[in-house]
Amino acid sequence: MADYRVPLKDMSFVLYDVLQADEMWQSLPSLADQVDRDTADSILQECAKIAEQEIAPLLRVGDEVGVSFNEGKVTTAPGYKEAFQTYVEGGWTGLGGLPEYGGMGMPKIITALHEEMLCGGDIAFSLYPGLTAGAGLSLAKHGSDELKETYLTKMISGEWTGSMCLTESHAGSDLGMIRTKAVPQEDGSYRVTGNKIFITAGEHDLAENIVHLVLAKLPDAPAGPRGISLFLVPKINVNDDGSLGEANGVSCGSIEHKMGIHGSATCVMNFDDAKGYLVGEVNKGLACMFTMMNFERVGVGIQAIGSAERSYQNALEYAKERIQGRSLTGAKSPDTAADSILVHGDVRRMLLNMKALNEGSRALSSYISMQLDYSTYAEGEAQKRGDTLAALLTPIAKAFFTDIGFESTVAGQQVFGGHGFIREWGQEQLVRDTRITQIYEGTNGIQAMDLLARKVVASKGTMFTVFADEVKAFISAEQSAEMAEFVGPLAEALADLQQLTDTLVAGSQKDPNMLGTAANDYLHVFGYTAMAYIWARMAKAALAKQDSGDDFYQSKIKTARYYFARLLPRRISLINTASQASDVLFDIEEDLF
Amino acid sequence: MADYRVPLKDMSFVLYDVLQADEMWQSLPSLADQVDRDTADSILQECAKIAEQEIAPLLRVGDEVGVSFNEGKVTTAPGYKEAFQTYVEGGWTGLGGLPEYGGMGMPKIITALHEEMLCGGDIAFSLYPGLTAGAGLSLAKHGSDELKETYLTKMISGEWTGSMCLTESHAGSDLGMIRTKAVPQEDGSYRVTGNKIFITAGEHDLAENIVHLVLAKLPDAPAGPRGISLFLVPKINVNDDGSLGEANGVSCGSIEHKMGIHGSATCVMNFDDAKGYLVGEVNKGLACMFTMMNFERVGVGIQAIGSAERSYQNALEYAKERIQGRSLTGAKSPDTAADSILVHGDVRRMLLNMKALNEGSRALSSYISMQLDYSTYAEGEAQKRGDTLAALLTPIAKAFFTDIGFESTVAGQQVFGGHGFIREWGQEQLVRDTRITQIYEGTNGIQAMDLLARKVVASKGTMFTVFADEVKAFISAEQSAEMAEFVGPLAEALADLQQLTDTLVAGSQKDPNMLGTAANDYLHVFGYTAMAYIWARMAKAALAKQDSGDDFYQSKIKTARYYFARLLPRRISLINTASQASDVLFDIEEDLF
Repeated sequence: MADYRVPLKDMSFVLYDVLQADEMWQSLPSLADQVDRDTADSILQECAKIAEQEIAPLLRVGDEVGVSFNEGKVTTAPGYKEAFQTYVEGGWTGLGGLPEYGGMGMPKIITALHEEMLCGGDIAFSLYPGLTAGAGLSLAKHGSDELKETYLTKMISGEWTGSMCLTESHAGSDLGMIRTKAVPQEDGSYRVTGNKIFITAGEHDLAENIVHLVLAKLPDAPAGPRGISLFLVPKINVNDDGSLGEANGVSCGSIEHKMGIHGSATCVMNFDDAKGYLVGEVNKGLACMFTMMNFERVGVGIQAIGSAERSYQNALEYAKERIQGRSLTGAKSPDTAADSILVHGDVRRMLLNMKALNEGSRALSSYISMQLDYSTYAEGEAQKRGDTLAALLTPIAKAFFTDIGFESTVAGQQVFGGHGFIREWGQEQLVRDTRITQIYEGTNGIQAMDLLARKVVASKGTMFTVFADEVKAFISAEQSAEMAEFVGPLAEALADLQQLTDTLVAGSQKDPNMLGTAANDYLHVFGYTAMAYIWARMAKAALAKQDSGDDFYQSKIKTARYYFARLLPRRISLINTASQASDVLFDIEEDLF
Repeated sequence: MADYRVPLKDMSFVLYDVLQADEMWQSLPSLADQVDRDTADSILQECAKIAEQEIAPLLRVGDEVGVSFNEGKVTTAPGYKEAFQTYVEGGWTGLGGLPEYGGMGMPKIITALHEEMLCGGDIAFSLYPGLTAGAGLSLAKHGSDELKETYLTKMISGEWTGSMCLTESHAGSDLGMIRTKAVPQEDGSYRVTGNKIFITAGEHDLAENIVHLVLAKLPDAPAGPRGISLFLVPKINVNDDGSLGEANGVSCGSIEHKMGIHGSATCVMNFDDAKGYLVGEVNKGLACMFTMMNFERVGVGIQAIGSAERSYQNALEYAKERIQGRSLTGAKSPDTAADSILVHGDVRRMLLNMKALNEGSRALSSYISMQLDYSTYAEGEAQKRGDTLAALLTPIAKAFFTDIGFESTVAGQQVFGGHGFIREWGQEQLVRDTRITQIYEGTNGIQAMDLLARKVVASKGTMFTVFADEVKAFISAEQSAEMAEFVGPLAEALADLQQLTDTLVAGSQKDPNMLGTAANDYLHVFGYTAMAYIWARMAKAALAKQDSGDDFYQSKIKTARYYFARLLPRRISLINTASQASDVLFDIEEDLF
């Protein structure tokens, strides 16, 4: 396997040449003191080092040895503990944390790139700090000052880690059915009892305490999702002076054996009269979770980007070195027994698909992260606008990036031919590890319904219009001859997406099932169109520097061209199927399946 | 995991209602004595039993325990040996074998369905008899009577198994570069020396001898593919009386650790001055291999069908039982806490994609197998026509069925949500096992080039015309009102495929690289169109029985409708990209990747 190299130059291009993130930081008072280009650059460079040198080497041992379980104890793979310690000592667990509790307060656009680096190194490893940061986000927003002082500080410092305990065996996508109970105590705390499954980092040996955020129901709670509350349940109780006290009623019953991310402990967690503390308001637990859900879902999309980038780097190195067959236009390396497989059109197709989708995903995820930052740090209209765009585009970040990221890892495996199927080459692990991103944090089917039903249709198309107007403004502004090859197809794609959106907003009134049967295709049409927008913006930025003599910009322009020619047309078939009524799927009775 | 049930009713529908295979058998003198409907039915029913009861239960142990290697010896997973013995005792190793050497002489259309059953049970297990049958085919066609008497008889009886030794570490798709040497001896035999990799069933404990067919070069052979000869190299030398003699210079150096099919021994094989016998003519080794290649490649396509069918059965059972959320049109099961997930449009989309692709693949693979049978058993024009259609459609069987089969197993995993990622549910194994089918026996990229360059363009479109004329004749004959919904879109798809074919035949004269950049998309356009043809034929057969009161035919008609509405449109985007010149891929210099 090739050494993983963080694509720092591309990240810098996206941040400054395409998105002008530095100007945004300066413009927002609550961010201006926190971050500037120098700070961001040194953070990204340092993070790249740890990702390349400490985390990337864990990928294989995490898979081959994985986590082990013995009498309630979970042991991580050799090297994980040391790498986590190095990570903690570097202060990385506090990268996005609140400064008043010891964090660095970096915006999402920076933590997102940091997440990509971690996941390019090893998705499984990234989940331990990842879940901690996610739980910390929820706690920061909804926890009492006391809870934050006691727990958030330690999570930001990396001394303790976090987990999110949502799913139960009978309740995954449908959390309204959970059975875990929380009984109020006289001292204001609760006693939590129930069983949770699929709890990432629910138990492990990386930290001395684990802070679980647990969804549970009060005895008198209303049925369904409106009766869910959120509780903080520590693995080990904390004394008043902040020291660790007695073990709480929390135990790990077993760990799952999975297709991939073997280095990540996926735990069955049992809560038995465990002491817990309410986070936020009673019966508002789902809302508290959704605070961090957009951040987490964008994060899952980014996991796939990291993994797909690594697969691309490996596949490219292999393709350059592997000689097999001859170019169709005559031998390119007549002195060797065969040409490199990079001369073959189908190998180029696979590699360029990966390259265009990876770079497009990186830029689009950064754009979406920027909207989350507007939502967090801006005020007034700018805040509202960021909030709308982030809510609209988050399901695309989660589902579209993971679907195409999985596709890319499969392509990266295919480039290797038979060697791609052999474990030691590493490409097959990236396929297995990336597969989970299409499933967890809300399956991609759930994301598609979130986009189409809860966002686009529920807002009667108004959320969509916010996005469409921005793209239209860009198209109007970019009428130069050299941008025509990008802006022309973008305008066409946007008009088609507008029409499809109108069709679905209207059609689903008469045919509600159309939402379900169109959602997946609609999300992908939207994804390819949004990616065309960001590729057009990248083309513009690269054209501005095309005479710099730096090949990077030539590569960017040609990859943009590839995206428009070869990938954007995928939307055409999807529009066809997304526009159809639901009857062809729903006229089939259960017995006829 | 649901119990695997062989879809016997669908197989029977395809054989008799759609393809009238029984009439074909009667019409060919060399087959009429061999097989009729009664014989075929009892064979399929018995085979279904062994697949369901003996082989399907091995799937998980084959994966979890797999094969092990110790000092040159390979031990298969617990239960494999017993199941193989039962399989041998049932006479199944001789199903397609020459009757004069003890085989049953069944046509490919029957052995193909038998292969699907085996692979629905366990692809890994199927490879031991599968490779034996493949090697036997080559030997039957090109081996001397003496070699056939000594070796083929034992392979057909199942006492010995076979392997195909082609790939070397530096020579996979490009076999012209192999280095294994064969030195002629005075007694007419050869001494074979070299190392082969990725040798399926190269070593194991299921049989007392293994018959390797090995590609090697004579010392004075011409360079490249025209200098390759084929040799039979037994693991253990055979005495003149047919008894086993001394060990030959053949050893297994190691076995590969793979993403899937852990139950299959993928061996590094070392030949060290091993005694071998020429099969066919000197320097015509590749041609001897290609004799069986069409059979084998269709077989690999069928592996994916078997696996995808099993994934569908599992996913359907899960979808019916799993309750989560509510129908968009109001609760369907108001008395339970939630509706079954079959009420959700996106779950239906995934299941119906699987169902329509699986049934379409089964019918189309049977149609292609029938062409192989015409090629083998017919004479004159009918033989020539079968030969042409089989050669044309074989790469589609291999690449299209495995690409959509892999897609189906991924969908079948997705239906399970988080449980799909957990090993014990079995769905993730089907994804891993099926993935190899896109790679081995010629990667799908190689298949696409075989179809477009070696078949369609090299014949200047004439091979394509044979297929197109048949579809046109069907369309002309089926102008009834009830067939219009199928025949209309089929005619459109065929016209588009014709136009794309013309574009590529003409375009590749000026732009040879266009073959490589268009091949994959072209193969899929062809695949979806050919599948539309067979779905239209299935619709016709089902419409003829729609008043029978049997739900099977209603299901078939509705699934046909689904195929035309939701899957056939995929070709539109693919036609767009397949029609493009190659420059957007080839204007990118190696350094810009």
